[in-house]
This record gives sequence, structure tokens and C-alpha cells, in this order.
Amino acid sequence: MTPNSKIVIIGAGRVAGHLGKRLTAKGLNVVQVLNRSAGPAQMLGGALQVPWSDQWSELRRDADWLLLAVRDDAIGETAAALAPYCPNALVTHTSGATPSTVLSPYFRRFGVFYPLQSFSVERTPVWSGLPVCVEAALPADLVFLQKMARQLGGKAWVVNDEQRAKLHVAAVFANNFTNHCLTIAEALLQEQGLPFEMLHPLLTETVAKALAFSPAQVQTGPAQRGDQATLHQHLALLAAHPDWQALYAALSRSIQNDPHS
Amino acid sequence: MTPNSKIVIIGAGRVAGHLGKRLTAKGLNVVQVLNRSAGPAQMLGGALQVPWSDQWSELRRDADWLLLAVRDDAIGETAAALAPYCPNALVTHTSGATPSTVLSPYFRRFGVFYPLQSFSVERTPVWSGLPVCVEAALPADLVFLQKMARQLGGKAWVVNDEQRAKLHVAAVFANNFTNHCLTIAEALLQEQGLPFEMLHPLLTETVAKALAFSPAQVQTGPAQRGDQATLHQHLALLAAHPDWQALYAALSRSIQNDPHS
Repeated sequence: MTPNSKIVIIGAGRVAGHLGKRLTAKGLNVVQVLNRSAGPAQMLGGALQVPWSDQWSELRRDADWLLLAVRDDAIGETAAALAPYCPNALVTHTSGATPSTVLSPYFRRFGVFYPLQSFSVERTPVWSGLPVCVEAALPADLVFLQKMARQLGGKAWVVNDEQRAKLHVAAVFANNFTNHCLTIAEALLQEQGLPFEMLHPLLTETVAKALAFSPAQVQTGPAQRGDQATLHQHLALLAAHPDWQALYAALSRSIQNDPHS
Repeated sequence: MTPNSKIVIIGAGRVAGHLGKRLTAKGLNVVQVLNRSAGPAQMLGGALQVPWSDQWSELRRDADWLLLAVRDDAIGETAAALAPYCPNALVTHTSGATPSTVLSPYFRRFGVFYPLQSFSVERTPVWSGLPVCVEAALPADLVFLQKMARQLGGKAWVVNDEQRAKLHVAAVFANNFTNHCLTIAEALLQEQGLPFEMLHPLLTETVAKALAFSPAQVQTGPAQRGDQATLHQHLALLAAHPDWQALYAALSRSIQNDPHS
């Protein structure tokens, strides 16, 4: 495997798109886009200026690295469908929640190339320092994947299946659940005719502090200081939203039980 | 009330300290620091280069604005103790959770000056754009408090007691609860020997997106897309932490029920 290895992007969604564009921009050798449906394949092939196809059988036989960026539940079947055409290529998926071993029945050289970021259609990710979790069955492939991560500007982390599974749960807390807390905050303000913008400085500071220190060290608030009067007042104010009231109680309890903070 | 009105800071904690320093830095007329215990009063008085005292009775009789930055549960008693010496001053507290009316038995001119930020000992807050929620019994005092908020570089928001109470709940979700989610994420990584640093880019992007759009619009993750396989896998991975498992379930349920996202 060399910097000139022929890369085929499998999939044409957000992760495939951002990875394909970055690989191409960094001069790496993306040679083809394959995707089950033609529309997105054509679009991404066009963006990368490489041939595309919606037929697995058109996979280039000389491909070196198959970068599977497909839905978690399609990884196994896609690998099975591609294996006959390129049995000796390195194949990796990009999933946090899926073990590398779902690929092992089909490919000898399998692994994972999981960029730990939330990719959006409309935003170009900051690749500099972006953690890419890599894993491979063969040591030489692991070295190659680490190099590729660094070529993208990212930081390579060797992370095994068990670690990656937990990392993915952690990412749900750090991304999805924090965002849901913000959604509730926004809704509560809206009910009072106040804009979410009012919370921007607080939120910016919250994250700056968590990054500068450690979230466990900077926990504050009524639950942390055992301020029962405020806790009761807040629960009463959430009476119209039983879901959020239950969340408030559960989160406060967890803060109070937390041996880490 | 004028920009030269004589300001007395009551309290010597984090909020008192940051407000006192900023008022002084902006050339406003802080004339005294009063605090129930002498040590912190002396420290803040020294920092501001103004007289200090631990005796309420030493309150300057010509004070125009008493800025009460004391614990929520001490606001009423402190106002009661100060009222005899300066019954005609404007008195405001800095609390999100406390109605302005706790001051009304003691002062005719009462109000709130609540800076919506999480103040730390070791960090200087960004005052530019910082939301300051103001409220006052008398219209002229409200105008004065709005001016003071702007003098500090902040943005004045006229917010009544009911709005401020809900805003405070929202701030708990946006600050304390997001931080707790990050604490759990950090702990999960630590168990796998991985550093929290790995989540920094994801977290930065999460917040950037929530600020650029609206958190309700950018919710992602297994709960949002109804990915039952991943939800079950994640719950199983949290078996060793019943508290976090329960939180994961409750947050996922709330995301799925949320009519806002």
C-alpha cells in the first residue's frame, strides 16, 4: 500500500462525500465511487471527477482500498457483494457502532477507518486534528490507515472494537444528548418569548471550560451543590412537560451520585 | 441615577468579584465592598481599591445602588439587614432563581441585575455581549440598570420574574446537564484508556452547529433516526452503570418524543 494506492469509495452519503472530497483534495488516488442508488453516486462521482457506478460488479478489479461508508446495517451485505470482485483488497468501514469482524467472513484484509465527527451536508468539517480511529487485521494495513488519517490532516488513534463501541456511546452523550439538552433549553426560552441567543455566551463558556479542564472538575449547579430549594422549584416549573421533568430529576440524581464529579 | 452613582457591592464571591472588577475597570463608581465574613471582603476591597467592611452597619449612607451578589438563600435576610441604613437606595440581586419581590418588603426601589453566565474564580468572563437580565420596580431604575449592563459591555434584556425563573431552568439544561453528559462521556473513555481529548472536535462541532442553526434542527444520533439495534447495543454496553443506562434510555425516549426536533 502506498500513497498512490487506488481508493474506491463505497457509498455516497455524508461520510462518503466528506471523505472522498478530502482524500481527493489531499492528492490521494480516489479512482471510483460505487453506490447502490445511481443519483447520489453520480453526484459524488461528478464532484470528485471520477467514474461512478450503481453496480457492485463494476468495482475496479485493481482497487487497493475499499472505503465502505454505508449505513451500519448494510455493511455486511455490501462487503459480501463486493468480495468476489476484489478479494485481496483492504476493506474498511467507517462505523463507530459496528465491529470490524462483520467484514472478516468476506475479506482477509479488513479494518476500520472511523472519523470521530458529526458530518453535515452543509458544513465542511475541520480536518485538522480530527480523530480517526483505525484498526486492521494486518499490521501493514494498520500502518497504511494511520498514514491515511494523517494525510487527511487528522490524528490517527488505534482503537479496537471494544474501545470503539464505548467511544461511540460516549459520542452519543457528548453530541446527541448535549444537543437534546440544548433543544429543551431553547424550547423553554421560546415559551417565555426569549431567544436561544441569550444562552450562547453561557454555552460557549460551558464548553470552553470542559475543554480547558475536565467536565468532571467543573460541574456546577443546584444538583452539584445540593440546593434542594432550587431543585424543587425547577421541577415544579417543568410540570407542563413530564418528559423534561423526569429528565431533570434523572440528570440531577446522576450528578449527585457521580463519584467522578 | 447617573454613571457616577455610588455603587456598593454586597458579597465577595465569584459574581461579586467579577462584577466589581468589571464595574471598576469601566470607570464606574464602586465605593465599598460589604460582606458577612471579613477575609473575602478584604480581598475584594483590596482588588478594587475601595474600603470594605464585614459590618452591615458600616454601609455608606449615601450609597445609590446596592448590588447584592450573595447566596440565593441569604438575599432576603441581607436586604432586611441593610434596609435601615439606606432605605432609599436602589437594591438589586443577581440571582436567576429568586423573584425580585423577595426584596420588596425592605426597599421601595428594588430590582434584578442577573448576568447570565457561569462565573469561575480562575477565568475572566467575556463581557462583550454577555446577557444581563434586568428588572426594576421603578421605570427610571430599569433604565439605569439597562445602561449599567451596556456599560459593562453586555446586552441588557428586560426579563420579568416568571421569565427569569424559566430561563434559569433552561440554563441548567444548557450548562449543568450538558456538562454532566460530557462527564459521563469522559468517564466512558477513561474506562477504555482513551483521553477525553478525542471528543474535543466532535464537541466543538456540536456546539457550533447548535449556535449556527438551532439545536432542534440539528439533532442526530440513533434515537433521532430510530436505530433500535444501536440503542439496544448501547444500553447493553452501559450495564455496569445503571444510572447512566437509565439516563441513556430517558434521553433517547425524550428525543424520540420531542415535537420540537
